[in-house]
Parts: sequence; structure tokens; C-alpha cells
Amino acid sequence: MPLEKVNLAEKLATFDEVFSPRIVGYYNDTKIQVAKVKGDFVWHSHSETDDLILVLAGRLVVETREDAVELEPGELVVVPRGVEHRTRAADGAHTLLVERRGTPNTGDADAEPAPEIEI
Amino acid sequence: MPLEKVNLAEKLATFDEVFSPRIVGYYNDTKIQVAKVKGDFVWHSHSETDDLILVLAGRLVVETREDAVELEPGELVVVPRGVEHRTRAADGAHTLLVERRGTPNTGDADAEPAPEIEI
Repeated sequence: MPLEKVNLAEKLATFDEVFSPRIVGYYNDTKIQVAKVKGDFVWHSHSETDDLILVLAGRLVVETREDAVELEPGELVVVPRGVEHRTRAADGAHTLLVERRGTPNTGDADAEPAPEIEI
Repeated sequence: MPLEKVNLAEKLATFDEVFSPRIVGYYNDTKIQVAKVKGDFVWHSHSETDDLILVLAGRLVVETREDAVELEPGELVVVPRGVEHRTRAADGAHTLLVERRGTPNTGDADAEPAPEIEI
């Protein structure tokens, strides 16, 4: 079975849409995604999965109702399942986003989820 | 619940041992680890989990018995469960290594696994 090398910057260069993660691979029951963030995302939570967010470029704020962290490239945070959160990036950010397969990016929010697109 | 920001470079600066991953967090049933590689690791496989390896610094070769890829920072590979593999880095590399909790880093190899250490 051949190994597939994934260059995250090359994958990110293939699309411009923000808040529309692209799937670049799978790890066990998990989708490995890259995403672009600019502005504020909707508040949402996922009852069935934690979120792992690693910043690849730019600065990203990850907020819960009680806390907020600002992440630079090489920094990550895990948002525990069930915790309402949103991401925001005034000047834009690129992220590696790991979520369980089948999880809509908007979680339980009353908002249209992004389609699941493999690149 | 407070969010914990994890700076991967700062975590990597806290230890020197190679082939001895350190756990920096958990995502669902998965341990998020940073690891240092220098030289050749043992051939091994994990029947119960894929391996996700993202290079953070240096150059890393990931080999199976049939294939090999060389990864630079910002590049990742998923080694499917059950596939015998090893990592090697002649000049050293730093990685983000994601494996299911409870997985020894040496898999099924006849070698002493590294202890599970949280940092």
C-alpha cells in the first residue's frame, strides 16, 4: 500500500473559502482537515466529538463562553465535546482541524454546515 | 472549563530523548504527542490504530516494506493500522504523533516501548 504524503500548505492553496474545511485524509474514525478562518464563526458545540485545532498560519482566537485563547502557528487547543465554542481570526488564519467523521462543522448550531469535500 | 493552549515547540524544548514521545493532550480516544527522531526507529506495526505523523521540524523518512516518503515541516502521512513501518531521520526531526491511547510506540516489535509521559 503506497503512503500518501500530504503537504498542508499546498492543500490550503487550492481553495479560498473560509469556514469550509477540506478533508485531506483520515485517521481511524477521524477526518483530518485544513480550514481557513477569517472573521467570526458561529457559536456551536459537538456532543459526540472533541475538536483538535492546530494553527498553521496567522492568529486564531478560540473562544468558549467562559474562556478564550489566542493561538499562533505551532500552537493547538482541544475543545472538549459538548463545550460551546467559536473560532475567529480578524486577519485570517489557516488551521489543521481534526474531528470525528460525520461531524458537521457547525455542530448543533442553527446554520448550514459546510459540505464535506475531500481534496 | 478553561481551554489549554499547547505550544508544540515549547513542549519539545523540555526533553532531549529520541523515540520517546511525550503526551501533550488528548483528543477523543487519542493521545496527542510530540516526539524527537534521530537515526532509525525499529520496524513495527499497530493492529489497532492508524498513525498520524506531522513533521514540525527537520526531515523525516517514513518507510513501509513497500514504500517510503520523505516529509518536511508542514507535511503529514497516515500509516494505516497493521502496516509495518519505521521512521528515520539522519539529521533529526520533530514530529506531532497521534495514536490511540494505550498504543505502545513500538507496536508489536520485540523492543521495549517508551513510557507514556505527559508533559
